[in-house]
This record gives sequence, C-alpha cells and structure tokens, in this order.
Amino acid sequence: MPVNLPVPVAADLFPVAGVRIGVTEAGVRKANRKDLTVFLLDEGASVAGVFTQNRYCAAPVQVCREHLAAGQDIRAMVINTGNANAGTGAAGLANARKTCAALAKELGVSEQQVLPFSTGVIMEELPVDRIVAGLPAAIAAAKADNWVVAAEGIMTTDTQPKAYSRSVQVGGKTVHITGISKGAGMIRPNMATMLGYLATDAAIAPELLQGLVKELADGSFNRVTIDGDTSTNDSFVLIATHKAGNEVITNWDGAEAQALKAALQDVARLLAQAIVRDGEGATKFITVKVEGGKTEEECRLVAYSIAHSPLVKTAFFASDPNLGRILAAVGYAGIADLDQTKIDLYLDDVHVVADGGRNPSYREEDGQRVMKQQEITVRVLLGRGDASQTVWTCDLSHDYVSINADYRS
Amino acid sequence: MPVNLPVPVAADLFPVAGVRIGVTEAGVRKANRKDLTVFLLDEGASVAGVFTQNRYCAAPVQVCREHLAAGQDIRAMVINTGNANAGTGAAGLANARKTCAALAKELGVSEQQVLPFSTGVIMEELPVDRIVAGLPAAIAAAKADNWVVAAEGIMTTDTQPKAYSRSVQVGGKTVHITGISKGAGMIRPNMATMLGYLATDAAIAPELLQGLVKELADGSFNRVTIDGDTSTNDSFVLIATHKAGNEVITNWDGAEAQALKAALQDVARLLAQAIVRDGEGATKFITVKVEGGKTEEECRLVAYSIAHSPLVKTAFFASDPNLGRILAAVGYAGIADLDQTKIDLYLDDVHVVADGGRNPSYREEDGQRVMKQQEITVRVLLGRGDASQTVWTCDLSHDYVSINADYRS
Repeated sequence: MPVNLPVPVAADLFPVAGVRIGVTEAGVRKANRKDLTVFLLDEGASVAGVFTQNRYCAAPVQVCREHLAAGQDIRAMVINTGNANAGTGAAGLANARKTCAALAKELGVSEQQVLPFSTGVIMEELPVDRIVAGLPAAIAAAKADNWVVAAEGIMTTDTQPKAYSRSVQVGGKTVHITGISKGAGMIRPNMATMLGYLATDAAIAPELLQGLVKELADGSFNRVTIDGDTSTNDSFVLIATHKAGNEVITNWDGAEAQALKAALQDVARLLAQAIVRDGEGATKFITVKVEGGKTEEECRLVAYSIAHSPLVKTAFFASDPNLGRILAAVGYAGIADLDQTKIDLYLDDVHVVADGGRNPSYREEDGQRVMKQQEITVRVLLGRGDASQTVWTCDLSHDYVSINADYRS
Repeated sequence: MPVNLPVPVAADLFPVAGVRIGVTEAGVRKANRKDLTVFLLDEGASVAGVFTQNRYCAAPVQVCREHLAAGQDIRAMVINTGNANAGTGAAGLANARKTCAALAKELGVSEQQVLPFSTGVIMEELPVDRIVAGLPAAIAAAKADNWVVAAEGIMTTDTQPKAYSRSVQVGGKTVHITGISKGAGMIRPNMATMLGYLATDAAIAPELLQGLVKELADGSFNRVTIDGDTSTNDSFVLIATHKAGNEVITNWDGAEAQALKAALQDVARLLAQAIVRDGEGATKFITVKVEGGKTEEECRLVAYSIAHSPLVKTAFFASDPNLGRILAAVGYAGIADLDQTKIDLYLDDVHVVADGGRNPSYREEDGQRVMKQQEITVRVLLGRGDASQTVWTCDLSHDYVSINADYRS
C-alpha cells in the first residue's frame, strides 16, 4: 500500500497540446500487460533530458544521449517495461537502435528523432521483435488524454500509476504541465530517475531547456531514495511543445516565468515523492531535512546517510523511536570535522537531541507518538553553517525483502 | 542460524599468559545476562587499538583514545553490553570515566590504565551504578582460560560467541594468540569493529604495535560489512603481554616474525568473518573480490557498492541469479571513467558477464546452482589495472528486518 498517494484520475490531468500517447500490450516479458508506450510529439517541440550517472548505463540511455546530442527535433519516444536492456553489450545497443529505427519508419521521421527507454530486468536480451511488432498498435492508440494510461504503461513493481498536472497563466495564456513517473526499487537517482516524463505546452526557448531539466531533477528526483541503488536506466525527460501561444520565455526573470518554473518544479517534486510513497514495501514517507551545514553537499551527505541506513529504515518500519541510529548515521556520513556536541535532532516537533546528547526534556512517548505516523520529518541541525538540504525516503519493511527476493519469479 | 560458524570450545583456545578475564551479570539492561566483562593485564603488557571513524563516536571510545594517548601501561579493560553510552553527551563521558575510576580503585592502578568499552542501545543513559556494583564479582571471576566466557559476555544480537586461537614458534618459544569478537548489526567497520580483542603472549616491541593493529584491522574488520552502518562504538584492541619468552620482535623481517604476523592476521580475519557469518539474519556468506582496478581504493569502492546493495543482498537471500543487480552496483560505485565494455563477472567458477554483456555461454542454471550455495564468491574484473581488494558480507533477509524492527523491545 503506497503512503498517502492518490490514484490519478484522467479528468484531473491536462492534455498537453502537441503530445499524444499510445500504449499497448507487446508481451515483452509477460502476456496481458501494458508494457509498450509511445509518445508522439508534434513538429517543433523542444526536448531535454537527464540520465543516470551509473557507469553501467543501459543501452537506451546511451542512445538517448546520442540522439539528443544529434540536435534534430525529437518526434517520438518509445518505452518498454519488462526488460531494462542493460548489461546487454553490443547486442543491446543494436536492439535499442533497431527499436528507434522501426518507430521512425512508422512515423516517417529519422532514427535520431526517436528516444528509446527500457525498464525491467537487467542482463537479459531485449525481445526487440515483439517490441517492433507492437509499435503499430501503440501508435494507433495514441491520444492526447492518455496520460493515466501512459502512467500505467510504464509501471514495473509500482503498485499504482503516478501522474500530476498543473496550469499557470503566462502572458494571458494558459500553460499546461503534465508529468508521469515510475519507480519502486533500485531508486537512488543520480541526475534523474527511471522514469520521469514532464511535458508542457509552454513556449520556452530551447536553449533554456537543458538547464531547466537539470534544475528540476535536482529539486525532485535527485532528492529521493528508496534503497540507495542507482539504476542503470534512470531517465527524466522534459518536453516543451510551444503550443500554448505564450510569448517565448527566454529567461526566468519576472513573476510569470517564476510561477511557471515553480509549477514545473512542483509537478517534478510530486512525481519524485510519488515514487517514494510507492517505494517497494513502503509503509512510511520520511522527509529528512539537514540544516546548519557548511555546504549543501555536506547536508546532502548527512541526509542520504540517514535515508540509506537499513537500521534507521527498519526502526521507522517498527515505529520504534530507536533514534540513536540516526545519530550514528550522522556520524558516519563523512564530515571529518563534525563536532557531535553541536548537533540537535528533531522528530517533527519533538526535540530529541540537544547539544549532541539526549535532550533532558525528551520523553520516549513523544518520540513514539511521531514514529507511529505515516509521514515523519527528521530534522538534523549540524550547527556549523547556514546550508540546508532535504531528501525524501521510505522505511525498510518485510515487503521490500519479499518483493526483491521474488522479483524475477 | 549463522553460516558455517563453529561454536568455540574452551579447550581449543589457548590462554594468553598475562591476561585474565572475568565476566558477571550486572543487570545493565536485562537481568540474568552476562553483560559485564573485565580483562586484567599483568604489568608490562603493550596495548594498541583502532576505533570507529564515526564522528558520533561513543563516550568510551573517546576515553579509550585519551587513555591510550596518556602512555601509561594499560592494566585493565571493562566492557558492558546492553548500552552503547553513545549520543549521551557530557554525562556519558563522565559515566565512562567513573567506570574506569571504579575499576582502577579495585585494582590499585590509575584511571588512565583502564580502557572502557560499551555496546548496545544508543542515546540512553549508562546505568553506571549497576556497572560499578558488578565490578568486584567480575574481578573475582577472572581466570586465564575464560576466553569463551568472555566471547559470550560481549554478545548483543550475536547468536553465538566468536573466538579463535593460533600458536606459532618464534625463536624456539611457543607464542599464543587468542581473540574474540562480537558484531551482528550496525556493521561496516571503518578502522575496526565493535568489538574485537586479540591478545598474544609474544614479545613485540611496543613501537610496532600501533602499526600492527592497523594492518590487522585493514585485513580483517575493515573488510566486512553487514548493513553499511558504521557503529559509534567500533573498537579493536591488540594486546601483547611479552610473556612467551621469545626474543623481542623489533621488525617484521624474517620468516618467524612473518609467520607470527600471518597467524595474528589469520585470527583477526576469522574473527571479522565470524561477525559476517553471524550477521543479523544472515543465511549466506559472500566474498566479493574485485580485480583489475587501477587502485585498491577503487576496488574497495566497487566491492562495498556490491556488498551494500539491498537489491544484490535480497537476490542472494532468494538464491535468485538476478545478477544484473551486481552490474548496476558496479556502475554506481563512483568510478567516473569506468568502461562497462571491459567488465567481466564470475560467480564462483561461472563466467556470467564477458566484455560488459551477458556471456553467450552463460546458462541460468549454472548461476542458479551457485546462488543456492551457502558460500559464494562474486568476482568482478574491472579490466583497468592490477589492483584488487576483497570484502566479506552476508545477504539481506526477512530476519534482518525482524531483528532490527524488534531490537529494543
């Protein structure tokens, strides 16, 4: 059961002019599953992406980077579940290209105008023939209001689809933003997560897009973790179709541009948090805020140290305020000159640790009360500066072990 | 059930002349538990230690460092379980000193000649009065052949005691080595683990001891991990009592000195591996060898990345050859210029990955056969140099979650 994650409703999601989406059952790994999704983009859309920093990056990630670098307008994306096409060597690369070529041929565009994405099991050969055979059906099914279907089409161990929408006014025009994501396991994005797609009909100068997608990823997908495993396939793509009729945004000055960026960031953050809320076996949604650091980087180190600790995560699962485990994780985060006597720890409003030791007024029942909640904020004050960072994670439960001990069977 | 870990038998453990050990039930946390252990050292013993690099180090770790730095002969060690005396601020430091002072008074030595150690729950006040009250009984129980009892006395969530012995000939004299350790959870030692004690009656020049204890830790406790959580209390202590009658060893040249060092390393490694074999919920013992790196440091990064991956560890638990997860962990280990097309992966004798992709001759049933074993070696060849490193770890099972969700209750 995901943690406070609403099931998206099609009526709540704005279509994005210039984007149509089709989904089909191609039998990639199992029968009777929506496992093949195509995004069809009208001419003139701008597309930017950020991808996994895992050096064992998947074949489709390599091809995405190539095709984006080629500089032609991107006209389509193809996403399969059931197979990650990672650890597949030269054959995997050839299969990713073959998929792009097949879709390009169907659409009458060039291979470089197609971006491929895969998610699923690593180190197994991509059943490229079944994917290619499924493309016509996916294209035929393409519609503008298919975002919920797409969110379903990219799921693997996710228990429910993830999609959010926003609209904002820019220069008297209504601009729409809609995005989807999937996650569940092998989640510790480094640049982006497998998979997030965010589209807007806003006209945004193409040269702003790459910086924007990085900024959005840093405020969203790059701040979540489930198990610390950075996937081979993480991809986050931002599409601007320029169909809203607004005057082209050429910088982020001005209230309306800021409001648009905030809305984009809002959707990206909700999509990233949705991945945590639906993390494998998750029963709690944990916000880890680290404040008072010398640099944002050291705050991130501490936040991830807490968010990755199996001991901290099992304590959250048990609703056990065994909070010394958090202190241990702060201590081994890698800040060489950390002074433990300066550290404070809060669990929501409860002041647990003062000056590095147990706060004399802390009572176990107060910690227990917060630990029982489904949403908990851990706040660590390092007492060494003004920097801060936040990451989001979930607990580590029996179901995480069950899901990952059984995933392939 | 620990993985292939024999229960130590008192008759197999050599006493070390100059070391007596006493254990009692002090009621530190729960009644009817051996929870207080004292080591009494004859005058003239040399002692060196390495301690956790966790910046939230426990009060006893801070006091150990001070007392070792003070340069007086160490005459006693006192170890309690049930409470880590970490995250306890100034009061915790005072309690650690009070424990040392009380034992020093009983023995007629100075406070600086006593080393304190604690293990158990973090952030709770040390019940120092119960510990002090228990000291006379522990001293009265002290005997030279109490090593198994001591190994039991320092256990927390360990399911069985850990102790090993060796003897070697040095200059016509028989030199004895005996050591004990405890572990179970919060195990990713960085310098040493909570707790390891190794004693020898060999005469070794005191100025060699600190370098030796570091070298031993690097080849043993610093190569194991259970959950990646570096404890606040890790301590590894080496004692040389100089009672064996051998000519003092002043350097490591020569076959006999090398044999002594090898025996010390052997015992340290077995003690460290015993911690993994008895890791919380462990059902498998995994050796991760990384070869062909440019530096030992990058090999360690890769080995720990594999050994800490919850996805890799749950796959081992399930005996599922979902080996792409190992590739993903190699990829995110942090080697920026890693070339995935150079990587080979072996599972014991089975060649799984060749040149970065699935080895064409790899058959799933071969991987399955190895994954079902209780002892498995993962060998990764990076193809970039001649460095190599090995770490030892265990799988991640339901019992790990159960144990850590219930630990304090």
